[in-house]
Amino acid sequence: MSNCLIAQSGGPTSVINASLSGIISAALDNPKIHTVYGAINGIQGVLNHNLINLTSIFSNEKNKLETLKTTPAMFLGSCRYKLSNIDNDETEYKLIFDVFKRKNIKYFFYIGGNDSMDTVLKLSTYAQKNNLDVKIMGIPKTIDNDLFGTDHTPGFGSAAKFVATTMLEIAYDTYIYDIPSVTIVEIMGRNAGWLTAASALARNEYNTSPDLIYLPEVPFSIYDFLNDIKAIQKNKKNVIIAVSEGIKDENGNYIAASENSISDKFGHAKLSGTGKTLEHIVSKSLKCKVRSIELNVLQRSAVHISSLNDITEANLVGNKAVEYAVDGHTGKMVSIIRTNNVPYEYTIDCVEISKVANKEKLIPREWINKECNDITNNLVEYVAPLTYGEPNIEYKNGLPVYLDISHLTNHN
Amino acid sequence: MSNCLIAQSGGPTSVINASLSGIISAALDNPKIHTVYGAINGIQGVLNHNLINLTSIFSNEKNKLETLKTTPAMFLGSCRYKLSNIDNDETEYKLIFDVFKRKNIKYFFYIGGNDSMDTVLKLSTYAQKNNLDVKIMGIPKTIDNDLFGTDHTPGFGSAAKFVATTMLEIAYDTYIYDIPSVTIVEIMGRNAGWLTAASALARNEYNTSPDLIYLPEVPFSIYDFLNDIKAIQKNKKNVIIAVSEGIKDENGNYIAASENSISDKFGHAKLSGTGKTLEHIVSKSLKCKVRSIELNVLQRSAVHISSLNDITEANLVGNKAVEYAVDGHTGKMVSIIRTNNVPYEYTIDCVEISKVANKEKLIPREWINKECNDITNNLVEYVAPLTYGEPNIEYKNGLPVYLDISHLTNHN
Repeated sequence: MSNCLIAQSGGPTSVINASLSGIISAALDNPKIHTVYGAINGIQGVLNHNLINLTSIFSNEKNKLETLKTTPAMFLGSCRYKLSNIDNDETEYKLIFDVFKRKNIKYFFYIGGNDSMDTVLKLSTYAQKNNLDVKIMGIPKTIDNDLFGTDHTPGFGSAAKFVATTMLEIAYDTYIYDIPSVTIVEIMGRNAGWLTAASALARNEYNTSPDLIYLPEVPFSIYDFLNDIKAIQKNKKNVIIAVSEGIKDENGNYIAASENSISDKFGHAKLSGTGKTLEHIVSKSLKCKVRSIELNVLQRSAVHISSLNDITEANLVGNKAVEYAVDGHTGKMVSIIRTNNVPYEYTIDCVEISKVANKEKLIPREWINKECNDITNNLVEYVAPLTYGEPNIEYKNGLPVYLDISHLTNHN
Repeated sequence: MSNCLIAQSGGPTSVINASLSGIISAALDNPKIHTVYGAINGIQGVLNHNLINLTSIFSNEKNKLETLKTTPAMFLGSCRYKLSNIDNDETEYKLIFDVFKRKNIKYFFYIGGNDSMDTVLKLSTYAQKNNLDVKIMGIPKTIDNDLFGTDHTPGFGSAAKFVATTMLEIAYDTYIYDIPSVTIVEIMGRNAGWLTAASALARNEYNTSPDLIYLPEVPFSIYDFLNDIKAIQKNKKNVIIAVSEGIKDENGNYIAASENSISDKFGHAKLSGTGKTLEHIVSKSLKCKVRSIELNVLQRSAVHISSLNDITEANLVGNKAVEYAVDGHTGKMVSIIRTNNVPYEYTIDCVEISKVANKEKLIPREWINKECNDITNNLVEYVAPLTYGEPNIEYKNGLPVYLDISHLTNHN
C-alpha cells in the first residue's frame, strides 16, 4: 500500500478546502491508499519536508471533514512558487521526488490555478521522463475562472455570489440619498473579467445596477467612460459601476499602473487602486458625489456567503481526483463539463494538463456588448447557476464556526 | 382617528428597516391610528410633501413586513438635513407642521442617529412651544453605537457581526502565506471606536487577530504604531490590525486628514484613506508585504450577515415607539436597557431627547488598554451578545430576497 500527498497553492477561494476535504475523504476510503499527507505551504512544504499527517487528523473525525468544506482560505497554507525549468535545473525535482520516495507517495494532488497547473505539468513531465511511478493530478480552483479545460473553476461561483450580493446591498445603500452620485466597485481580475461580470446578477426587476461594467478583455477609454456615466445620469440619479482591477487602456497599460507597478514572481503586475484612480477622475470631471469601493480579499474568503453548488462541485472534484489517480491517470486536471443549463447539470472529467497550464481563459468577445461597457445575457445565464444554494454553516456566539488553523501560525 | 408618519435619516444600518417594520406593524394594529404614512428621504420628504401611504402597501401584506425586517438600507430613503435653529427661523417648522395638520398626523416617528435626534428635539420643542398636539418620537439607529440614553443602538450588533466575521475570514486569508505581512483593516467610526473594537470578537482559541486595535478615543502615534507592529512581529509572521477611520494624532488631527478634508453639512470631516495612509507608512518603514482593506459601506448594508438579536431589538424598539407615542410621550427616544449579560437580557424604556441629541457616547477610557493599542475584556463581553443569532433570510437564484425599493429610484 502506498500513500498520497495533497498541497494547495495560489490565492484562496471560499471552496478550496471543500476540494481538500473531498480528496481526504476519498483517499481515506480508498483501499489502495494507506496514509494521507498534506504539505504545508504548497510545493514549498514538500521542498522543506514540512508535511502533516492528515489521516491522523481526520480519519476518525467526519465532522471535521464537514467543517473543512466551509472553512475559508487554505487549511494547508499556500505558496506562490514557480519550479525551475526542468531542462535548466533538476535539483528541485530530485528533492521533491526524494520526499515522495521516502514517504512512499504514489499520488500527489495539487489544488490551484493556472500557475499551480504549471507545477503539475512540470512534475508529471519529470516523473514520466524518469519513469517514476507517482501520479500527479491537478485540482482546479480560482475565483478568476480563467482556466481552460473546465466549464468553470471551483471558487468562482462563491466569489460571484459574494460580488452579486454585495453589489445588490451597495445598490440599496446608494439609492437612499436623493443626491446625484457615482459609486465605483472594484472587483478582482487581472486579465479575466468573469468575476466583475458576475456583478450583473445583482440586477433584478427593480434594480438595474450595476449600470456599467468594465472588463479587462476590452480596451478601457476614460473619454468613453465619462460619457457612459453622463448618459446614465440623464435617467438615473445614482450610477453604480462595476470595474475589474485589471482594466487597461488601448495600449495595454493598466489604468492603475501609475500607482503601483511592482510585479510578482510570475510576472503579474500587482494591482491596486483602479477604483480609487477612477474615483479621482470622475470627481474631477463630473459634479457629483463619488465613492469607490474595493471588494478586496473578501471576494475570496467570505465563506459565510458561499454557493452550495460551488462547494458541492469543489468537493466532488476532489473525490474524483483520487479516483482518477488510482485508476492510473497522471498529468491531468479534473474538470467540470456542463451538460445542461436549465436545470443546471454537469459531469466530471479530466483533461491533459498541458492544455491548461500557463494559459488564461478570457471572456469571449461576443459575451461583451458592442460599447464595451456591459455584458450580454449569455454570460449572465452562464454564471447564475454557479451561485445557487446556501451552505448550512454553523454559528457559535454570533460567528461562523471554522476549522482551527493554528498549525499554520504556531510554528511562526 | 388620527394618522402617523414615519421617516428615516442619516446613514443606513442593516436593521433600520426592522425598526420601520416594527413601527408599521404596531401602528397598523393600533386602534388609535388610522393611516400610516412614510416620508421619502427623511424630514426633507415632509418639507417636499413627498409622502407614501404605508397602510396601503403593507396592511394586507404581512409577508412584506417580514421581508422588510431584513431589507438593507432604508425603505423610505434618507437625508442628511439639519433643521434651522427655531429661534432664528421658524419657516421650516411651519411647513412641517402644516403638512402634519393637513394629513392629520398626530404621531411622528424619526429613525436615526444623533443628528436625527437633533431633529426630534427641535420638532418636539416647537410643538410644545406652540401647543401643537403631535407626539414626536426618536427611534435610535447607528452602526457607530455612539448614542447616549441607550445601552447600545440598533444596527451596531449587525455591523459588529459583519466586522468580526470579516476579520476572522481575513485572518484565514492572511495566515496561508509563509511570508511576513501586515494587514490593516479600516473600520467605520469618526469619533467613536465601538465598531472597530468589535473586531476583537474574531479572536478565539486559535486566532489572536486582530493583533492591534487603534481607536479614535485615544491619541494615535505613528512612532508607537510602528513599534507595536515590530513587537508583534517578534512572535508572529502575519500581523493584522484593526483601525478606526477616525484615529487622530495628539493634536486631534485626523491621520487621514491630509488626503481629504472636506466636511459635511453637520461639520464632520469626511474621511477616507486612513488604512491607505497607514499602509504607505508601514511599507516605507518596515520590510514586509503590506495590505490595507477598507470595509466601506458593507459594514452598514451587509444584511446577509446581520444579527438576529439586533433585528429583534430593532423591531421591538419600533413597536414600543408606537406604544409610547399613543400613551402620550413626546420628545423622547426609545432606548434599550441591558438587565443581564449572561444570559443576555434587556428591557425597553424611553429617555428625554435632550439627553441624547447632538452628543456622542465614546468608549470609556477604562475599556481601552494602557498602551492604547487594544481593548479590555469588558468591552468584548459588552459587544458579544449583540451579535448573536442568525436571521432566516430567503434566497432566490443564489441571491438574498430583499424588498423592492423602486419607489426610491423611479421618480429620478
